[in-house]
Amino acid sequence: MKSLFSCVFFLATLTLRAQDGHSLWLQNKASKSVTVICTKKSPTLSIAIRELKDGWQGKADASCTLSIKKDKTIKSDGFKLSENAVEANTDKGILYGAYELLRRQQLQEAITGEVENPSYEIRILNHWDNPDGSVERGYAGNSIFWRSNDALVVTEQDKKLWQEYARANASVGINGTVLNNVNASPLILSADYLNRVKAIAEVLRPYGIKVYLSVKFSSPALLGKLKTSDPLDAEVIAWWKNKVKEIYSIIPDFGGLLVKASSEGQPGPQDFGRTHADGANMLADALKPYGGIVMWRAFVYSPNDKDRAKQAYNEFMPLDGKFSDNVIIQVKNGPIDFQPREPFSALFGAMKKTSVMPEFQITQEYLGHSIHLVFLSPMWEECLQSDTYQQGEGSTVARCTDGSIYNQTYTAIAGVANIGLDANWCGNDFAQANWYAFGRLAWNVNFKSAQIADEWLKLTFYNATSNETSATSYATEWTSNFLSPVKQMMLDSREAAVNYMTPLGLHHIMAANEHYGPQPWWAPEGTRADWTPPYYHRASKDGIGFNRTTTGSDAVGQYHEPLASQLNDPKTCPENLLLWFHHLPWNYNMKDGRILWDELCYRYDSGVQQVRSFQKTWDKAQSYVDSVRFKSVQQNLRLQCRNAILWKDACLLYFQRFSQLPIPYDIERPVHDLDDIIKNDRRNY
Amino acid sequence: MKSLFSCVFFLATLTLRAQDGHSLWLQNKASKSVTVICTKKSPTLSIAIRELKDGWQGKADASCTLSIKKDKTIKSDGFKLSENAVEANTDKGILYGAYELLRRQQLQEAITGEVENPSYEIRILNHWDNPDGSVERGYAGNSIFWRSNDALVVTEQDKKLWQEYARANASVGINGTVLNNVNASPLILSADYLNRVKAIAEVLRPYGIKVYLSVKFSSPALLGKLKTSDPLDAEVIAWWKNKVKEIYSIIPDFGGLLVKASSEGQPGPQDFGRTHADGANMLADALKPYGGIVMWRAFVYSPNDKDRAKQAYNEFMPLDGKFSDNVIIQVKNGPIDFQPREPFSALFGAMKKTSVMPEFQITQEYLGHSIHLVFLSPMWEECLQSDTYQQGEGSTVARCTDGSIYNQTYTAIAGVANIGLDANWCGNDFAQANWYAFGRLAWNVNFKSAQIADEWLKLTFYNATSNETSATSYATEWTSNFLSPVKQMMLDSREAAVNYMTPLGLHHIMAANEHYGPQPWWAPEGTRADWTPPYYHRASKDGIGFNRTTTGSDAVGQYHEPLASQLNDPKTCPENLLLWFHHLPWNYNMKDGRILWDELCYRYDSGVQQVRSFQKTWDKAQSYVDSVRFKSVQQNLRLQCRNAILWKDACLLYFQRFSQLPIPYDIERPVHDLDDIIKNDRRNY
Repeated sequence: MKSLFSCVFFLATLTLRAQDGHSLWLQNKASKSVTVICTKKSPTLSIAIRELKDGWQGKADASCTLSIKKDKTIKSDGFKLSENAVEANTDKGILYGAYELLRRQQLQEAITGEVENPSYEIRILNHWDNPDGSVERGYAGNSIFWRSNDALVVTEQDKKLWQEYARANASVGINGTVLNNVNASPLILSADYLNRVKAIAEVLRPYGIKVYLSVKFSSPALLGKLKTSDPLDAEVIAWWKNKVKEIYSIIPDFGGLLVKASSEGQPGPQDFGRTHADGANMLADALKPYGGIVMWRAFVYSPNDKDRAKQAYNEFMPLDGKFSDNVIIQVKNGPIDFQPREPFSALFGAMKKTSVMPEFQITQEYLGHSIHLVFLSPMWEECLQSDTYQQGEGSTVARCTDGSIYNQTYTAIAGVANIGLDANWCGNDFAQANWYAFGRLAWNVNFKSAQIADEWLKLTFYNATSNETSATSYATEWTSNFLSPVKQMMLDSREAAVNYMTPLGLHHIMAANEHYGPQPWWAPEGTRADWTPPYYHRASKDGIGFNRTTTGSDAVGQYHEPLASQLNDPKTCPENLLLWFHHLPWNYNMKDGRILWDELCYRYDSGVQQVRSFQKTWDKAQSYVDSVRFKSVQQNLRLQCRNAILWKDACLLYFQRFSQLPIPYDIERPVHDLDDIIKNDRRNY
Repeated sequence: MKSLFSCVFFLATLTLRAQDGHSLWLQNKASKSVTVICTKKSPTLSIAIRELKDGWQGKADASCTLSIKKDKTIKSDGFKLSENAVEANTDKGILYGAYELLRRQQLQEAITGEVENPSYEIRILNHWDNPDGSVERGYAGNSIFWRSNDALVVTEQDKKLWQEYARANASVGINGTVLNNVNASPLILSADYLNRVKAIAEVLRPYGIKVYLSVKFSSPALLGKLKTSDPLDAEVIAWWKNKVKEIYSIIPDFGGLLVKASSEGQPGPQDFGRTHADGANMLADALKPYGGIVMWRAFVYSPNDKDRAKQAYNEFMPLDGKFSDNVIIQVKNGPIDFQPREPFSALFGAMKKTSVMPEFQITQEYLGHSIHLVFLSPMWEECLQSDTYQQGEGSTVARCTDGSIYNQTYTAIAGVANIGLDANWCGNDFAQANWYAFGRLAWNVNFKSAQIADEWLKLTFYNATSNETSATSYATEWTSNFLSPVKQMMLDSREAAVNYMTPLGLHHIMAANEHYGPQPWWAPEGTRADWTPPYYHRASKDGIGFNRTTTGSDAVGQYHEPLASQLNDPKTCPENLLLWFHHLPWNYNMKDGRILWDELCYRYDSGVQQVRSFQKTWDKAQSYVDSVRFKSVQQNLRLQCRNAILWKDACLLYFQRFSQLPIPYDIERPVHDLDDIIKNDRRNY
């Protein structure tokens, strides 16, 4: 029997057309005929009409009406759906409604006539793309926007790709994109580059997507040849005003500027004795006449502070109320830097007179690049639903940033993109789900990860035509054999990564440069301490963890009560953040009765076991996936498993030098030698 | 509690003195006083007396009598033991008896006055050491005998090492050693080298060990500058007679010559149209006056034969009866080449008028070098106890070679040494057990592997002084916590290696040159077929295995009945040799109900699981082993585990290309990609 099944198994695979993943969640489905009625004309509406005609899966020979109204229940990009109609206040609203209608049809979900309004007004991608075409922390090939300084000419191929990019973003509600790295080159503001930005904006515009740029704060000096870039200097102010004017002359709907200032070596207002507010407001003034905004990043830290986790708060809180209303402070989800698990940044729910927006990282800088299968939606959901207690219980990060608690002039959310020239856009077919999920959560902060994974899997992998003899029974089989287990794998995947990388609140113990693989020992002499893992894990014979309680750095004091007290006590601090906030002895008693060292061992081991279970899940799904995507994901999972084992071995063997305790004997033994790992570094992967 | 135990655990380790393994199974033990009475004097007897005095663990203040008698029940090197006396016919017999007495005392075993006679008269090591100091298939550093052509001077350090070597060998009954590689350099017969051989012989002589040399058959031409090396040429005959005379003039008790002729590019009598018998007898004639012997290897095969496994038999059987009585045909245990599992060579139990000796390989050429922990005793025991049915049931390989069935003039057994300059002699502390086991089995073919492992572990690792407070309770604890599990690990280790390398009768699928790691696909164009793995595994869509039945190469026909018929039928062929003798379809039904492909998968997987269990066993034993040996073995086991996983992944993924069947889903998935393994080759290890 087994062998018979196996033969069927392999044959079934052959019938699925090989795919390179380029079509994302926008698979071509057989459409039914529809008449689309729309009295108004615009490029955006034309797209909506074409999409409906190409993808209609409602009743055959139906007619669908698109209506622009002034409905007060509908906000900004929102819409109202019924089975055969989309209503909105804007063309963009119609387009989003059309995509939602098609999604509901494909997912065979009910359409009940409700209004859908987005949670955030600005739902924006940050591309860390450099003018030379490289992508900082990009793992999916070179930039889709930039090639090299000498190749700024726009080709038809460029436009086709940008259009596909725009369509994918529009289909999940993303309406803005920052085209270049926050570690910005001043060149981006030169005429040649702005011309290419103009071309990109023209392709993106009908899809409702505004373009933004990252700027280097010292551009006036570097590009404008001024003597200073002091934000209070009249010439500097004039230079920026002119530059902004130039931009809007060629891109009338330009979105605004993103600034990484006084951070990790980037210039900023503090170089001239000015504050973040001075710098941000100067730019905001230049942008204001055109409706542009400034997104000013709060990712700042200096080498000598006793706790890097506290610095953004310390620098920005005193400036609360000093920022112009078209400035938004862009805050990473956690206080350090996109680690597999962090508590939410205390800046969320802290400032009361300043607009704040979350910055998530879609590209997997610290989460296994595009090799590890890690569905990030649960991580973002965890952050958005974290309670800051700013105005009592229920003051979630989401509500502190989406305008529910404070009436921000602008609400926004940013995601650092994971997109490159790779055929499948994201390097790993499952990394596409993170792009998708970011869009969906930006649209509705209350979406659940399980629902998002469900949608994405159906849109991306379901192909009824692979078995035409009995579509219904195939759908049932597909749901139980593919959808359910693969969805569970996605939902478990982030916790697995936390387990094999940084369980129990550990953080920043990764390899120094690539941020891939473990290097908890890395601390070359002369390196600034807050760039080295031992600064964060503080392992010693006495114990492990960073004391951020009132007896330590008092980072807990940046949080509102009752959270601060809860975090301050190891007995009430969530165990998954224990070593973030506490330095505890190796024999500290965990809630399950184990000592801390043993618990750490079991967590690392469970991460490895989880990845192994993912491999089984995927291998069992083989007959439901085309061979190209199947093999690609399978290969990545194999490497992920080896990586997980290496993480476990490296961290446990390293920490064991301090704990002096054996790894519990029911756990699979290390297969690497610590000295070898340290010596070989990346060659072990 | 767990943490308390753990602390004790780590502390206990510190109390054990670090050891580099150099003292082998001859650990220094506190001795009790003894008076040794011996009326005769000789260097060998002096050693026996000193050993007894240094190591006496019998009753304190006892006296022990050593007596040379002419006791007919005692044969050659044999002896008779009682609690306070050793009797023998020779000084060597006394020495072996003294070592046995000490061993019994250390092991606390009863001494019942019985006679112990060795199974084989000649118990010999073959060193594959080259004159430049390198060791072919050696994994424990360079040669202990040779440094380089320019460094033949004998130092005191050399002599000390050779004495330690001699003592170790004598303690397990080894009485001969071939000092150089069977792929011999003619240089070994030059005066400078013979002088060093003389020095080695002088150190080894008191320990009862004779030296032998490997010779290149074309030495008369290469070294003697004759026109030919034809064994029937008068000048050649004279040259060898002179050379042998020269040897005996400086080493009067020289043992004889080992010859690899007409094999793997080595010259031989067939180069001159002569037979193996012509060549061997010519050398035997030269040696005969001095009592020397010729060990002539049967390891021959030519590129064009249809089944390499048949060739030694085919070449040698017609010569049965044509060899001089001081020629012994040296036959490897299996028909191919020291594979993890082979059937016994059909030459055992075949020839009736020719002396035959088994050649085992102590160095782990195909069994993971000195990295993998593989106790080889069960493999040799399996071979020695295999029934050839030459004279009906019970005609084991042992009885066919030890003189029980045929009255051979000489009986002998050879082991290819695993010894080098490494501090611990063998590269891996557990590889020492294979040296020990070879000696013990050569002494008594009926010893059991379990008993040998038990002895070796007690002699090598038991150290009562590590816990002096309560020696008795420590011994009990040591037995249950160290001896039992570690012995089980040793006894399981060879089967584990077979499982993760070559289960079910697979063979010769290892990496082409290093013979380490898997390379079942290796078959570069132009390579002779019988050097490539596909020649041996014959995997195709139809199935896998080498058909050596009557419908195939008929290698089964070289075995006696009823074995031949048993092997010929897949239903009666032992499953652990199934694919050696049969080519079977992937869905062939195994005895446990699984199909062949699934069974293959489970076997490979079980090999990996076994190595993992060895790791646990060893880690749990930490407190009973000094830190140096503990870490060294631990590190090797870690690498062995990675290697086992690589073997499993490489073989299953490669064979899957033919089987087209999934690996059963309850098996841990591969973590390597086949293309990557093939591309990277050794870099994956």
